[in-house]
Amino acid sequence: MRSLGHQIVAEFYSCDREILNDVDFVRNAMLEAARKTGATIVTETFHHFSPHGVSGAVIIAESHLAIHTWPEFGYAAVDLFTCGDSVSSEIGFNHLRQELKAGHVSTMELHRGQVDMMGTARDSGAPTELKLAHA
Amino acid sequence: MRSLGHQIVAEFYSCDREILNDVDFVRNAMLEAARKTGATIVTETFHHFSPHGVSGAVIIAESHLAIHTWPEFGYAAVDLFTCGDSVSSEIGFNHLRQELKAGHVSTMELHRGQVDMMGTARDSGAPTELKLAHA
Repeated sequence: MRSLGHQIVAEFYSCDREILNDVDFVRNAMLEAARKTGATIVTETFHHFSPHGVSGAVIIAESHLAIHTWPEFGYAAVDLFTCGDSVSSEIGFNHLRQELKAGHVSTMELHRGQVDMMGTARDSGAPTELKLAHA
Repeated sequence: MRSLGHQIVAEFYSCDREILNDVDFVRNAMLEAARKTGATIVTETFHHFSPHGVSGAVIIAESHLAIHTWPEFGYAAVDLFTCGDSVSSEIGFNHLRQELKAGHVSTMELHRGQVDMMGTARDSGAPTELKLAHA
C-alpha cells in the first residue's frame, strides 16, 4: 500500500525522570535524532512546563518529530513522522530510546496519506518524484 | 483504560489545493483550531516548502497540533494531541476539516501513555490532578 508518509508512534516508559524534565537535554536529543534520521531540520520549538514536563517539535523537510514528557511518570510520548526514502526514522527512534534511558517501549507504525485515496496530481503537473519528497 | 493523552490522527483527502499551499491560511486555521479546542497556545512554527506544501506545529500547554500538506494531492495529515479534560480536540478537528474543505476524511484515535504501564508517581509527590494536566 503506497503512502506519502510514515509515522512511528512511540511510548517510552520508565525513562530517566531527571532527563525528561531537562528541556535542553530533550531538545538536543530530539535534534540529534532528526540528524541521525537523515532529516533536514527546518525549525524547532521546545518548552519546559511548570512544575515539570517538556514539549517540543522539530519541523523537518520530511515532516516532523514531536515529544511530550511526563517526568513524574517516567513517560514520554514521541512521534516521528517522515516522508521520502532518504530518511530512516527508526534510527532516530533508537537514538531517543537510548538517550531517554527508556526501560520499556511500545510502538505503532502508521502509513499516512494513502495514494490510492487521492485524485491524480493532474492539476499541479507534479512529477512522480515529488510525491514522496514534500520539500 | 486510563491514559495521559489523547491523539486524533486525521487524514484529510480531497481538500482545496490552493488553501493547502497557503501557509498563512493553514497557520491561522491551526491556531484557531487550537483555540476552539480550548487549548492554551504556547508557541508555533509554520513553514512553506518549495515548490508546494506546508508543515507546521502548534505547541499547546496540553500537547500539540501538527499538520503537513501535499497540495498536489489535495491531502493533509493532521495530528491533534491533547491531554486533560478541559480541551476537546474533536472541535479543533471539525474546524480544520471545514477550513481545509476536506472532501473525505479518515481518523484514528489513540490513547497515549497508559497509566497502568507506569510506576507510581512516588518520586515526585505529584497529586492525581497533575496526571492529566501536563501544565
